[in-house]
Amino acid sequence: MSSKETRDRLAELRAAMAANGLDWYIINGTDAHLSEYVAPYWRTRAFISGFTGSAGTVLVSKDGAWLWTDSRYFIQAASQIEGSGITLMKMDMEGVPTLQTFICNSACKGDKVGIDASTISIRDFRKDGALYRRHGITLVGCDDLLCGIWKDRPSLPRTAIRLVPEAVAGLSSRDKLALIRSRLSAVGADYTLVAMIDDIAWICNMRADDVECNPVFLSFLFIDQERAVLFTDLGRFSSGSLAQASKDFEVRPYEAVYDDLAMLAHGLPYYNDEKVNSRFMDILSCEDEVIGRDISTDLKACKNPVELEGMRRSHLMDGIAFANAFSKVDFSKVDGTYDEIAISDLFACERAKLPGYLGPSFNPISGFGEHGAMCHYSASPESNARIDHDGLLVLDTGSQFEYGMTDLTRTLLFGEATAEQKKDYTLTLKGHLALARARFIHPTRGYQLDVLAKQFMWKEGESFYHGTGHGVGFNLNVHEGPMRISTAPIDVVLEEGMVLSDEPGIYKEGRHGIRIENLLAVQKDIVTEFGQFMCFEVLSLVPYEKRLIDISMLTSEEVGQIDAYHKRVYEELVDKVEPSAVDWLREATRPLAACGDK
Amino acid sequence: MSSKETRDRLAELRAAMAANGLDWYIINGTDAHLSEYVAPYWRTRAFISGFTGSAGTVLVSKDGAWLWTDSRYFIQAASQIEGSGITLMKMDMEGVPTLQTFICNSACKGDKVGIDASTISIRDFRKDGALYRRHGITLVGCDDLLCGIWKDRPSLPRTAIRLVPEAVAGLSSRDKLALIRSRLSAVGADYTLVAMIDDIAWICNMRADDVECNPVFLSFLFIDQERAVLFTDLGRFSSGSLAQASKDFEVRPYEAVYDDLAMLAHGLPYYNDEKVNSRFMDILSCEDEVIGRDISTDLKACKNPVELEGMRRSHLMDGIAFANAFSKVDFSKVDGTYDEIAISDLFACERAKLPGYLGPSFNPISGFGEHGAMCHYSASPESNARIDHDGLLVLDTGSQFEYGMTDLTRTLLFGEATAEQKKDYTLTLKGHLALARARFIHPTRGYQLDVLAKQFMWKEGESFYHGTGHGVGFNLNVHEGPMRISTAPIDVVLEEGMVLSDEPGIYKEGRHGIRIENLLAVQKDIVTEFGQFMCFEVLSLVPYEKRLIDISMLTSEEVGQIDAYHKRVYEELVDKVEPSAVDWLREATRPLAACGDK
Repeated sequence: MSSKETRDRLAELRAAMAANGLDWYIINGTDAHLSEYVAPYWRTRAFISGFTGSAGTVLVSKDGAWLWTDSRYFIQAASQIEGSGITLMKMDMEGVPTLQTFICNSACKGDKVGIDASTISIRDFRKDGALYRRHGITLVGCDDLLCGIWKDRPSLPRTAIRLVPEAVAGLSSRDKLALIRSRLSAVGADYTLVAMIDDIAWICNMRADDVECNPVFLSFLFIDQERAVLFTDLGRFSSGSLAQASKDFEVRPYEAVYDDLAMLAHGLPYYNDEKVNSRFMDILSCEDEVIGRDISTDLKACKNPVELEGMRRSHLMDGIAFANAFSKVDFSKVDGTYDEIAISDLFACERAKLPGYLGPSFNPISGFGEHGAMCHYSASPESNARIDHDGLLVLDTGSQFEYGMTDLTRTLLFGEATAEQKKDYTLTLKGHLALARARFIHPTRGYQLDVLAKQFMWKEGESFYHGTGHGVGFNLNVHEGPMRISTAPIDVVLEEGMVLSDEPGIYKEGRHGIRIENLLAVQKDIVTEFGQFMCFEVLSLVPYEKRLIDISMLTSEEVGQIDAYHKRVYEELVDKVEPSAVDWLREATRPLAACGDK
Repeated sequence: MSSKETRDRLAELRAAMAANGLDWYIINGTDAHLSEYVAPYWRTRAFISGFTGSAGTVLVSKDGAWLWTDSRYFIQAASQIEGSGITLMKMDMEGVPTLQTFICNSACKGDKVGIDASTISIRDFRKDGALYRRHGITLVGCDDLLCGIWKDRPSLPRTAIRLVPEAVAGLSSRDKLALIRSRLSAVGADYTLVAMIDDIAWICNMRADDVECNPVFLSFLFIDQERAVLFTDLGRFSSGSLAQASKDFEVRPYEAVYDDLAMLAHGLPYYNDEKVNSRFMDILSCEDEVIGRDISTDLKACKNPVELEGMRRSHLMDGIAFANAFSKVDFSKVDGTYDEIAISDLFACERAKLPGYLGPSFNPISGFGEHGAMCHYSASPESNARIDHDGLLVLDTGSQFEYGMTDLTRTLLFGEATAEQKKDYTLTLKGHLALARARFIHPTRGYQLDVLAKQFMWKEGESFYHGTGHGVGFNLNVHEGPMRISTAPIDVVLEEGMVLSDEPGIYKEGRHGIRIENLLAVQKDIVTEFGQFMCFEVLSLVPYEKRLIDISMLTSEEVGQIDAYHKRVYEELVDKVEPSAVDWLREATRPLAACGDK
């Protein structure tokens, strides 16, 4: 997109703002479900600014425009908005105000700040609205002003909905509704509105393809003790699946929710004010409203035994694909034979051969050398680096299977490693292992365990800034709440059946990046006079890169843990990989002590 | 108190409830400042129930009465309420509802639940009130119904107020007010009401003795951009100190606050809804109220250089007193020569000889054998155990000094230790040391570090249930927020100058207790490309019990850490302790390796 186009669009937006009596307008690029990943229809931030990163907020005034984004995107954003008249606001940098503070400091008393009411949560609308009011400024939830400007806007997605059999889901949607209704009674609420589309997919045992890599469909779900009304387009269902779905749900058109809810809603609402958009505020707001996480979010977080078995199978498949793919690669070749996309495609190709594979669970990250130091680097044909010198490649990929999902990161070594690379890899691995082998008392929350993955690198003055572990869905979103292992004070106990990633890393700008990621399932461990202890089951089945391990930095406990894991990987995979991959697998999983002997 | 007396008091209370149209009445034993420790006037829970523990809530209905308390007090409470008709509700036990759930399940629609409005926070009043309303029940904030019943009620304390010189406080109250006013402006609020009495003492640089061990005075403080009005009784001041105080504060009578605030308050309030009681709700409530921790709480948490120097001096004094006291004890004597109170008194006596000593900072804990397994055991003349067999004694004590405060726990060994005792002591010590030597990136919150103190005992299936570390005041309250090192998701970054305890423990009912506690000050460590790192300075200067350490369980890093600490303790104390204590000090601080040689 040219800067001229951006300037033209901004001018049209300013005209629309004036027509609506607005002095400022906010475009945050989320959807009416406040999703992390959105369908093309909602890529409003990219439309108005030209900036295509996955996070950021645009503020437009009568004579200015600003883009807030985080450090991952400073370089990309600066380049994409150049000449557009938009000012880059580098989030979390010294002296850079937040959007809210900027508005408080810049707007005049009496100014009106507009935002598409469907793209801001009730909580944020109330909180920001109160802040602005204290400065004499009004926050206005309005219609999407881009509707009249964005001529060739993609339509709202309406992909076909498929039903997930109970044999795969482990629990019927009827049983899930019963659990939700029982919890509604317990908190004294009469109904709930679910707006999170992965929660709705889980409750309904339905999947579709509205959002890339996320098998979800745009919908809202109203539940009270008698009814469950699913707002999504009827045309998505085959006649057979509609008959099946209609046993538990009334299906009504997606856009009807805003009018129909007022008629359906009786009594006290229970809702997640961080996930329900502010267009519902007038209907839901009442003195005794019950605010909380969606009930389904807590239920779906704990995978049932059938789901867990599917997750294990998914990881076995991933392990097979990894061995089949990388046994074909000559890691001593640094002559430009390979490039980032080729390496990523090789793995994807092997995965695609496996039963039940549906596609990637997110856009793969394959970053060689200094690209690996950008946590969220995505190789494009333009950026695609050739592997023409010694270096590390961070490969972070995942698969959707009919019966589960994976998310895996390995740091691969091409050529020879420097001492610094080995040290950083080993510090990262020590943290990764410490978290995986943790025994912890119930109840323990994810934030309590985060330091286990960081303690060794902290001692050396190193750290990383992303979460150590995110929750993972069951053939749903690769980032799934409410559980996390991170520094954030999220008060969610790690319960049996939760699946989380364990992915510390070290990123040195311009030099190298390292990340090591397995998925873990929380399980019960011993019971003592002090209570129930918990531990993790490692789901991923892929060898670490032994050539990057500095054995002298490991304790004997750590050596034993690595060797035991590799033995397990070997035993689970050896009779399932291609015959040509067996030698590679045997070598990749040889005990560390034996490697030292070489 | 006899059970007959309790029954009579309950009958009188029920008559008062009927006269006020109340079906239920709650007595929680806190004061109008929602303090942890209260003056005798506020010991309402003990008055109505006979239960003298430090935590619990009494609920009275027309024909029943219930006491909720936690596991520390199950035995004591059962004994003290026997025959009174009060039912013990064991908090956090399987199947025992919370007070709120019990009321929702037991009260009839239309019932009125009363509570002295000054003993419930605005936050809890709103939250509980909304919950009850959903069940058709009304929460009524009323007067203290005990006023008419409690004939010989102690009067409200009015101890003399003394001023803390700026040379000791490190910052004038004028400067403190300026910091608060600046922060008020920044958040867009016009005034604040401070209700936390230790915050008020800190802001005003004043101390008194209203609450045992806590040098505070009952007061409220109103602050806006022009005025600072201190509500506390004028008669507490000498004429000189009143003149001094009046330079920065208008002083008005304590009880006048409820009437005067309405006149003083203009514009938007900033207040801590967890610490301001619900009698202020009507005045403070408004749509755009700003809720947050008291501004002073964050300011006073970071000790300034003068305060820190005073804290160091306080710990030096404590170290001297410990050496002087325990060099006189023969730890091989288990013939009943010593008892719990005598050991605690011995230390207290030595402390009292030191310059600037004001008294204990809390009631000392001295628990021998199975008493040590009760975290909050307090030896009384009746319970006072003689040391007549081999065993461990948990000694947890602290001092107020004019220039600071201490809090220290050591586990002492009389006679010989069992292998289990040595293992538990060493597991506890390993956690205590891991926390003390942590290097952590800024910003890090206390909950992130908690696991460092628990990881070793968790591996062995052991744990403890109290916080690992609490904030500590400067000649104020021994438990001071907002910082903590615990499992609770308290979003407070550990900043330079904060002082916290490091006190893991292991408690085995009926067998033994172990706790090891030092105070730590947060300080800056190295800066790297990853940012600013922080670490702890250990303030306490008292040797560990080497006879309880199983050296085979320690890493060489841990041995080095203990030896370096003991070397420092020796060097700082050797020329300050009594001549007769030098040999003891030298032996107690000899390197571990040398001990192994013995």
